[in-house]
Amino acid sequence: MGKILVVGSLAYDSLTTPAGKVQRVLGGSANYFAMSASLFAPVQVVGVVGDDYQSEHKQMLVNRGVDVKGIEHVRGKTFHWEGAYGNDLNEAKSLKTELNVFEYFHPKLPSGFDSSEYVFLANIDPILQAEVLAQISKPKLIVADTMNFWIQTKILDLSAMLKRIHILLINEGEAKQLTQTSNAVAAAEKIVEMGPKSVVIKRGEYGFLLYSMGKCFALPAYPLKTVIDPTGAGDTFAGGFMGYLAKFDLAGNLGALKMASVYGTLMASFTVQDFGLRALESLTMNQFERRHLEFREIVSVNV
Amino acid sequence: MGKILVVGSLAYDSLTTPAGKVQRVLGGSANYFAMSASLFAPVQVVGVVGDDYQSEHKQMLVNRGVDVKGIEHVRGKTFHWEGAYGNDLNEAKSLKTELNVFEYFHPKLPSGFDSSEYVFLANIDPILQAEVLAQISKPKLIVADTMNFWIQTKILDLSAMLKRIHILLINEGEAKQLTQTSNAVAAAEKIVEMGPKSVVIKRGEYGFLLYSMGKCFALPAYPLKTVIDPTGAGDTFAGGFMGYLAKFDLAGNLGALKMASVYGTLMASFTVQDFGLRALESLTMNQFERRHLEFREIVSVNV
Repeated sequence: MGKILVVGSLAYDSLTTPAGKVQRVLGGSANYFAMSASLFAPVQVVGVVGDDYQSEHKQMLVNRGVDVKGIEHVRGKTFHWEGAYGNDLNEAKSLKTELNVFEYFHPKLPSGFDSSEYVFLANIDPILQAEVLAQISKPKLIVADTMNFWIQTKILDLSAMLKRIHILLINEGEAKQLTQTSNAVAAAEKIVEMGPKSVVIKRGEYGFLLYSMGKCFALPAYPLKTVIDPTGAGDTFAGGFMGYLAKFDLAGNLGALKMASVYGTLMASFTVQDFGLRALESLTMNQFERRHLEFREIVSVNV
Repeated sequence: MGKILVVGSLAYDSLTTPAGKVQRVLGGSANYFAMSASLFAPVQVVGVVGDDYQSEHKQMLVNRGVDVKGIEHVRGKTFHWEGAYGNDLNEAKSLKTELNVFEYFHPKLPSGFDSSEYVFLANIDPILQAEVLAQISKPKLIVADTMNFWIQTKILDLSAMLKRIHILLINEGEAKQLTQTSNAVAAAEKIVEMGPKSVVIKRGEYGFLLYSMGKCFALPAYPLKTVIDPTGAGDTFAGGFMGYLAKFDLAGNLGALKMASVYGTLMASFTVQDFGLRALESLTMNQFERRHLEFREIVSVNV
């Protein structure tokens, strides 16, 4: 089993969805990722929090065996994001982004973290993603996420980062934006030309498209009748994806990338069933495996 | 093997897509359906054309063994539709709809057609769909399509029609509109409460969601790097769907509905690779089966 390092945001989110409203619940890409991946493999988190960060939120990670030595405490307030979703849950409207202590964050890997073999660079400034890569010594697999903001404002740094990673996980809309195409397969091909060997295009309720070694693999998401809050679905996907690969130490195997994508979409299907990290916090391997089996029937063409 | 009856439009289409422009190419739901379904089972077409309908277009159906006795010739011009697509190929903009001879069309089934066991009511006025049902004697399986226009203008006739069919095939957007929900699974559940035993929600490049006997089944479409013209994809889907069920005479079997949906999405993936009916006209069983095998690998989680 491999160890997973994640560098990303630790945040409080205020969220409005058609299902309701919550104030300052725990969020941030690194939290979603860690709570998801730690179901399968040991996780180390690097990030920054402020004075207002509650100890129970660190404890939640510790309870799942996550190594929190890399969580830096800084004077000031924790990153706060306020977002709202309409009936189209695929699109979040950012109402407020208060970077707070995150504004001056530079990732510093504690000793022991630099030898992690599975590295996930969550959706942060590509310059910070590069700073992480400069500190790791023997990565087997480097996976990154990014978003429209960095595509618009730091395309050169982003391009440099893409040359140094193995797999990019990216939303469909952002994949098309990055490659200036309107077709997902064409976007995946172009991303692979930019550096990564493989790319997973995340499609929300429509699942994912994995492109690797000139081949496509695609599946829909687990069909849900009710989605409460889509926040963190992408980071949860990444957690399941990396969790699978680290658990079985299977970086670089195409069949494993398929299964890792299935783990990703399944984990995300739990996250969206409640606000924030609630669903992930109580999730057990038993529940995961039940849904996994059900999913296989849902997408099975072996009639 | 069962016989398939289709009632729908026979048309000329003028189309603009990002890939180009064509004028007055053969189109219409019944043509797309018949060219798709006839790859698998015998098809009978009922529809109306005008003086301008070219004999080669009837011959194209005849060459595929389609029974064209039900194509009525009326003085006037054939139905003409003009549509345009932007980069989002999921949405057509209707520029012109000239009903012409279709305006006064009432379906009349020739003798021999009334005993067809597999009936597809393409997307026409629900009143005309009911007129077809009044003329058939021993249907095994009645499948229908509909669209936003009928949902908005003839909801009562549409509701009455839904009580008389076994399966509804419908676009995702229209399924949500019909049921006033924003979730595909919830929409499918509500449609089943309205009458049909099963529903297939068509999702374009994202494939389909089949809902039957309280269960979901979903797959993405065959991934294509280039889509030339999405016109007729839904009717082609219906053709593959009905073609499979009639070929193996498997109405009412859940496993068969799954496979029929796969046939539908695969057939549609050919249609969109060229303008109008071009791709379907030259398609062979060998090409279909090759893509079918490739598709099974693309969606296979048996790693």
